[in-house]
Amino acid sequence: MVSMVSRPGVLSLAGGLPAPELFPREALSGALSKALREDPGALQYGGANQRLKEQVVGLAAERGITAKPEEIVITTGAQQGIELCVRAFLEQGGGLLLDELSYTGIHQSAALRLPKWAEVPVDLTLGSDPAAARQLLSECSAGGESMPDLAYLITDAHNPLGVSLSEERRVAWAQLLSESGIPVIEDDPYGLLWFDEPFADPLKARIPEWTLYLGSFSKILAPGLRLGFMIVPAALAEKIGVVKESADLESSGLIQRAVSTVLEGDFLSEHLARLRSVYRERRASLLDALDKHMPEDATWTQPQGGLFVWVEFGRDIDTAELLRRCLDRGLVAFLPGAAFALPGSRAVERARRSMRLSFSSLAPDVFDRAIATIVRALEEPTR
Amino acid sequence: MVSMVSRPGVLSLAGGLPAPELFPREALSGALSKALREDPGALQYGGANQRLKEQVVGLAAERGITAKPEEIVITTGAQQGIELCVRAFLEQGGGLLLDELSYTGIHQSAALRLPKWAEVPVDLTLGSDPAAARQLLSECSAGGESMPDLAYLITDAHNPLGVSLSEERRVAWAQLLSESGIPVIEDDPYGLLWFDEPFADPLKARIPEWTLYLGSFSKILAPGLRLGFMIVPAALAEKIGVVKESADLESSGLIQRAVSTVLEGDFLSEHLARLRSVYRERRASLLDALDKHMPEDATWTQPQGGLFVWVEFGRDIDTAELLRRCLDRGLVAFLPGAAFALPGSRAVERARRSMRLSFSSLAPDVFDRAIATIVRALEEPTR
Repeated sequence: MVSMVSRPGVLSLAGGLPAPELFPREALSGALSKALREDPGALQYGGANQRLKEQVVGLAAERGITAKPEEIVITTGAQQGIELCVRAFLEQGGGLLLDELSYTGIHQSAALRLPKWAEVPVDLTLGSDPAAARQLLSECSAGGESMPDLAYLITDAHNPLGVSLSEERRVAWAQLLSESGIPVIEDDPYGLLWFDEPFADPLKARIPEWTLYLGSFSKILAPGLRLGFMIVPAALAEKIGVVKESADLESSGLIQRAVSTVLEGDFLSEHLARLRSVYRERRASLLDALDKHMPEDATWTQPQGGLFVWVEFGRDIDTAELLRRCLDRGLVAFLPGAAFALPGSRAVERARRSMRLSFSSLAPDVFDRAIATIVRALEEPTR
Repeated sequence: MVSMVSRPGVLSLAGGLPAPELFPREALSGALSKALREDPGALQYGGANQRLKEQVVGLAAERGITAKPEEIVITTGAQQGIELCVRAFLEQGGGLLLDELSYTGIHQSAALRLPKWAEVPVDLTLGSDPAAARQLLSECSAGGESMPDLAYLITDAHNPLGVSLSEERRVAWAQLLSESGIPVIEDDPYGLLWFDEPFADPLKARIPEWTLYLGSFSKILAPGLRLGFMIVPAALAEKIGVVKESADLESSGLIQRAVSTVLEGDFLSEHLARLRSVYRERRASLLDALDKHMPEDATWTQPQGGLFVWVEFGRDIDTAELLRRCLDRGLVAFLPGAAFALPGSRAVERARRSMRLSFSSLAPDVFDRAIATIVRALEEPTR
């Protein structure tokens, strides 16, 4: 199916890929050449780049986070951050609190620990439900079970849902996690990719001592760099640094230097402005097309940033089957929601009649056709 | 101590760093520019590069290994290869068979599994002793203990010892491992960095189904790229690929493409010829200096490639203390052997009176002075 989805001519709303035409090729090319020309350490072993850590402190400030360089761990992408947190905090068979629909990367990393999944209901307007999570935790303690070792949340522009947590829920989550002493991975690859106004303060700005914050350069510069960062309490940064060393020694010094050069001056703020403006327009086109074509039993998110819209149907359909019909027509692809639910979980039924649409990589004028095609396939009599 | 070792003016034989003046800056700079200019996928997500896998098959052939592209896993450096093998094969509390003096990266990765270490004696002329390993294994089975889950060997230009396994011991190791059904990590970062003639066939060429072969571009191109590879049976490559995905999704597509471009044509064979010639001369100078200055109770390896010579003293000294004295003179640094023995193990005593000398990064004319300084510090009355 992967090969069909990426077949030429197929309008793909499937991948979670940033728009390649917006990659800052020239800036990166110049920065790489400069590092190779001027910096004798660029190709040598050398650990984490101190200047880059200072620049990450600056990026964090734009997110409302006060950080110090010694709280930064440079990672080989945010996925490595997930992996390092899981290894540091999730015991074999321990509990993991997470949204019932969530990023597959946390599923993959945590699955190796055979955890007890504690799944939190999440809705399309307010995000992950802290009251339900509180209920889950009190059932744990009433039942004599141990508390989860770790929580995982995507505060803003959720993957796959596209939703951002409401302010009230941020406050409630911060209170719940700090009260119960559960460290939380706050996965924030889209935090600077807001479209209309900056996202509200993330958990890291509210309960810094409980938050393992993960940032990424994949969505604001390019995924092919494989560079991200963690912001964690300094004592923990040192310990995680040791585990990071056993994982891959260090992240590429060459890439670290190039990104650091790109982050000097005003380039990033101009680049972000451009990303926001292009993605804003694509989101608007997709939302317009959904308004125009979707049947009455469909509901979807109104993302304030990121790459994704999530659509849920009221009827009992299987979106994997719907995808097959769309691909038979050779025209359009999306990701069936089932990918984002844990097998056997309560959310499977909901996920089965849902789909994730990515608006990042298509021109605004094709969404109308893409959504019309999906809806035609949806409404046709099943064979 | 790290900051003292790297102080300007100190002749450092301490680091395991390839010579920076030999990094192929221009070739890499051109290849990176080309990828950014011509390849729309260079900055996008995209998994392992198929062309690079084919080229790795070619590199493996130079090592006497017959491989297929589907047996290759591209890794973020060979350390990630170690980590992935440990995660795939070493159970929590399981047994790991390895040299009593070995690379610290295997110690770090395996330590998180709290393994039972089965330590194999290793000598300075023939390498790791398969007869002793056989004895260890039969004691395991006589004592009703389970066999080790995994073995770890550095067949050629051992880190820290600099020794290569004798042909007889290669044959005996291959027989022992395949007979007992123990998979072996063959860590081979220096396999193409021979000086006089190619190394004998590695274990991967002898018992491919039992060998998890790890290669690296760190020593033949540059460490700052963070790129390496594994060669494992195809069915395993697929499984390890999934664990790799949870570790860091994929290795940088940009770096993969740049290395692939550098590997086209004759560049690498010319580059390797140059590396061999420069390192050969540095090794000769270091060995000459050892011959000239070392006292009678010192013995050392005669490396046929790689970066390191290992020196052991007969007398009861602590090379960490010796290093401190050398640094007090502000002149010369090396790595005390203790770093390469497991704490509390039998090898600690031996390691304590040993040191690892790297000949990779200094000009040939300074080794005489460096070794003379170490020997003066060694012979002076201790305070």
